[in-house]
Amino acid sequence: MLYKNIVVIGGGTGSYTVLSGLKLFTNLNLQAIVTMADNGGSTGKLRDELGVLPPGDARQCLVALAESPEILRELFNYRFDSGELSGHNFGNLFLSALEKITGNFEEAIKTASSILSIRGQVIPVTTSNINLCIDLDNGDKLIGEACVADSKELIKHSVRKVHLTPEPQINPKAFDAIMKADSVIIGPGNFYCSLIPNMIVPGMKEALIKTSAQIIYNVNLMSKVGHSNNWSVEDHVNQMHRFIGAEVIEIALYNTTQPDPKLVEKYKEEGEPVIKASGSDKIGHTALIGADLIADGIFINPNKKDPVKRTLIRHDSLKLAESLYRLI
Amino acid sequence: MLYKNIVVIGGGTGSYTVLSGLKLFTNLNLQAIVTMADNGGSTGKLRDELGVLPPGDARQCLVALAESPEILRELFNYRFDSGELSGHNFGNLFLSALEKITGNFEEAIKTASSILSIRGQVIPVTTSNINLCIDLDNGDKLIGEACVADSKELIKHSVRKVHLTPEPQINPKAFDAIMKADSVIIGPGNFYCSLIPNMIVPGMKEALIKTSAQIIYNVNLMSKVGHSNNWSVEDHVNQMHRFIGAEVIEIALYNTTQPDPKLVEKYKEEGEPVIKASGSDKIGHTALIGADLIADGIFINPNKKDPVKRTLIRHDSLKLAESLYRLI
Repeated sequence: MLYKNIVVIGGGTGSYTVLSGLKLFTNLNLQAIVTMADNGGSTGKLRDELGVLPPGDARQCLVALAESPEILRELFNYRFDSGELSGHNFGNLFLSALEKITGNFEEAIKTASSILSIRGQVIPVTTSNINLCIDLDNGDKLIGEACVADSKELIKHSVRKVHLTPEPQINPKAFDAIMKADSVIIGPGNFYCSLIPNMIVPGMKEALIKTSAQIIYNVNLMSKVGHSNNWSVEDHVNQMHRFIGAEVIEIALYNTTQPDPKLVEKYKEEGEPVIKASGSDKIGHTALIGADLIADGIFINPNKKDPVKRTLIRHDSLKLAESLYRLI
Repeated sequence: MLYKNIVVIGGGTGSYTVLSGLKLFTNLNLQAIVTMADNGGSTGKLRDELGVLPPGDARQCLVALAESPEILRELFNYRFDSGELSGHNFGNLFLSALEKITGNFEEAIKTASSILSIRGQVIPVTTSNINLCIDLDNGDKLIGEACVADSKELIKHSVRKVHLTPEPQINPKAFDAIMKADSVIIGPGNFYCSLIPNMIVPGMKEALIKTSAQIIYNVNLMSKVGHSNNWSVEDHVNQMHRFIGAEVIEIALYNTTQPDPKLVEKYKEEGEPVIKASGSDKIGHTALIGADLIADGIFINPNKKDPVKRTLIRHDSLKLAESLYRLI
């Protein structure tokens, strides 16, 4: 069997979907490079109060790659729902406690990887303690991913510059993984909050230019209001290239199936239309490939074993993995 | 090699000492029966806020029996020291999150046992959700172990009755372990807070009477003000028999070495003298055996690898284990 080195770059939720699907192919050696800019929710509290690096995105990738018994995966995803622990995620506490003991976030990931028997590797894009910062055209600054994600300012003003503060260095392990990869898969994920905080880490551009790996970009399904208003598939490719600073994407994979019209209507009311392609098969040097990638309305939660009606339009991890597998 | 089934009954700290030492003897199959009455500190908060059973005592026994890499033992003992998690012990959070997921404290212990690769077994004395309750001679009631431990009332008033509320049933696994044991080791530990909450669980008396196991009682080193004021070794044996309701102890093992006089002085100022024996070798049917059991003033913390001056008078786990091994 031909083994392939696959690097997945993104944040927690999007990478979880990609990794969960690709994990089923036994000839893929998976490495997840994760953003380290989250500062919201349980992760944000832990950063503030314990002075640790953000555990949330890494934790979701660890769980996606876990081959441990179901109970441990459930434990890592468990969220306390009462008392002063309310909102804290157990896996986050696990990584943060280990980081406090060892003084090293990568050691914490290593121990968690061993307990969860993960197949592959989770690599923080940087081990610098950073925050996402967006300069708006009116001179205002949005600091912190949580602030960027929720900001109403982004609807009113356009983005002048996106940077990380203080300026980090790429984790050498992330650089090496990209250099040795057969394929690098970017996204899906929130454009400014999950993808760009990886792409603008100094050293990332160089890695993506130097590597001989095929680079695939999983374009999101839905626009995000204020972030990617009415961007087409082509706009996503152009914007991604703008932030990387080089035209490195070989293939942009996008969805062609119409989601449930009721859900589309709900998203539209929020100002978040379906992301569409013009139908051309190339933009610049990037091939545009469409496929049915969308999860059905009825979704079987693998943890709960009972079918629930999806209220979000999401990638189907199996469909996405199958399409990716044909390309890589 | 002759394998022996050893049951250790007690609470967290005392049982930790006994189990850490006995674990070094490879022919002992160790089972720790732990009190479930703690309601103070991190454990108390988790009981109140999450509605779980008290994890603290079980957690200490799990760590004592762990054969996992050092980092996991450290993790289970790690205490958060800032923010809203401050004071919470990671191992407690681990057991409580698992109990919330599975709805079963014994399942939580089982999963933790597997992750920590424990040698032996940790058995809650009961899986009922109980509190310790002490009726005083003035009619007042002290409810909850934390209240009993710190109460100034116990200095002024004498104990009329000690009971658990609501009345629990003994865990059948604890009963079976005692029935199949070659030796049952009780203590050391806080008399009212760690030992008696095991002894007065309905079914314990019957198990201790019916079993053919040798029953050894590790008498504490120091008195506890208000709890065991000026009790001699013989008083401890008599009091223990009073609470069990039967004279079942075959051997009471006590310390004969004089601790560091400076430390003794400090304890004395708190009203907590050294527990002494009269020198007789029997009380009733119980043999009284003295030995050097005390930890030296200089103590190498195995976690930190740097010697620290002990400020507490404690059993030495190796000396205690060696003395016990000769008896069992």
